[in-house]
Amino acid sequence: MFEQTTDKKCALLLADGTEEVEALTVYDILFRAGIPVATVSVKPEPLITSSHGVTIVTDTTADAVNFEDYHALILPGGMPGTTNLKACAPLCDALVHFAAEGKLIAAICAAPTIPASLGLMKGLEATCYPAPAFTQVLMENGVHYTERPVVESGSFITSRGVGTAIDFALAIAEKLVGRAVADSVASAIVYRRD
Amino acid sequence: MFEQTTDKKCALLLADGTEEVEALTVYDILFRAGIPVATVSVKPEPLITSSHGVTIVTDTTADAVNFEDYHALILPGGMPGTTNLKACAPLCDALVHFAAEGKLIAAICAAPTIPASLGLMKGLEATCYPAPAFTQVLMENGVHYTERPVVESGSFITSRGVGTAIDFALAIAEKLVGRAVADSVASAIVYRRD
Repeated sequence: MFEQTTDKKCALLLADGTEEVEALTVYDILFRAGIPVATVSVKPEPLITSSHGVTIVTDTTADAVNFEDYHALILPGGMPGTTNLKACAPLCDALVHFAAEGKLIAAICAAPTIPASLGLMKGLEATCYPAPAFTQVLMENGVHYTERPVVESGSFITSRGVGTAIDFALAIAEKLVGRAVADSVASAIVYRRD
Repeated sequence: MFEQTTDKKCALLLADGTEEVEALTVYDILFRAGIPVATVSVKPEPLITSSHGVTIVTDTTADAVNFEDYHALILPGGMPGTTNLKACAPLCDALVHFAAEGKLIAAICAAPTIPASLGLMKGLEATCYPAPAFTQVLMENGVHYTERPVVESGSFITSRGVGTAIDFALAIAEKLVGRAVADSVASAIVYRRD
């Protein structure tokens, strides 16, 4: 049962090749925190096949939504999911608008390269999956790359991979509805927050 | 890309109301470890809707598989997913056979109550989601309930919830293909194993 605690609706972007656990861990934890989340396929069809071959039906598609109706944009990683998200022009336009307006953009694993390569994170701190192909994109675009599991800087939250996805999701929940709710969700899923 | 390391094929059971992250974390980590996994819907149709409303297409259905072809049965939790798994007679029959033959059964969250209530875990140690509705089922069926994140006892691996799902999945991988592969997967997902 979903018990809504806020009207800060989030858009969770999915593409063919998205890392399914990075995506659904965020979905799960925001659901438990009472935060409305729409899963949004960047394909014309409302379903995607993940980086490990799992087909997931999404709530809607990028063509059908007005991103400005959302409070936050959330980008899971995985390859070629990240490349496919980056190729969605309406999403890139929305990222530019969100950054200009100081609205929350959260990205994990390879996905922080998307806003970085759009030049939206200059001078900010961020993390990403620790492979040179991704860390270099951050550094070449003026981002201070760090190796903390979750990094909040400006209006961005970034994180590293499947192994940090729960911390990433809890940080998003905390940003939107506060520490007490995030701690309560952590406890309900038998998770020890550092 | 799936690079198979073993022929120890696992069946990951899914029902309407299954906890999607408990299920897909196992799928993801076994995939990365090179272990073949089939997602098996206990419905007549090869798709389920998770405890938080995410629709996932499965590889096959319980009606279509011969469970004896598999090396291990894996039961994610969530409600009413656990109740729906328990209601699948061919699955319960398979659990009885697997236990008798000493074949691996892994269960997390509410799902350890399924083999426990079938009387398959008498005298063993196990854990589950820390709610009395589940811990009592274990204790009433002769199981020594403990609160460690992952418990291996007899041919069973049990665990507690979404927050312990990565450790649960890595323990299954370690059991099937060894510590070195499990550690390599942990590293690849940026996860610090205790």
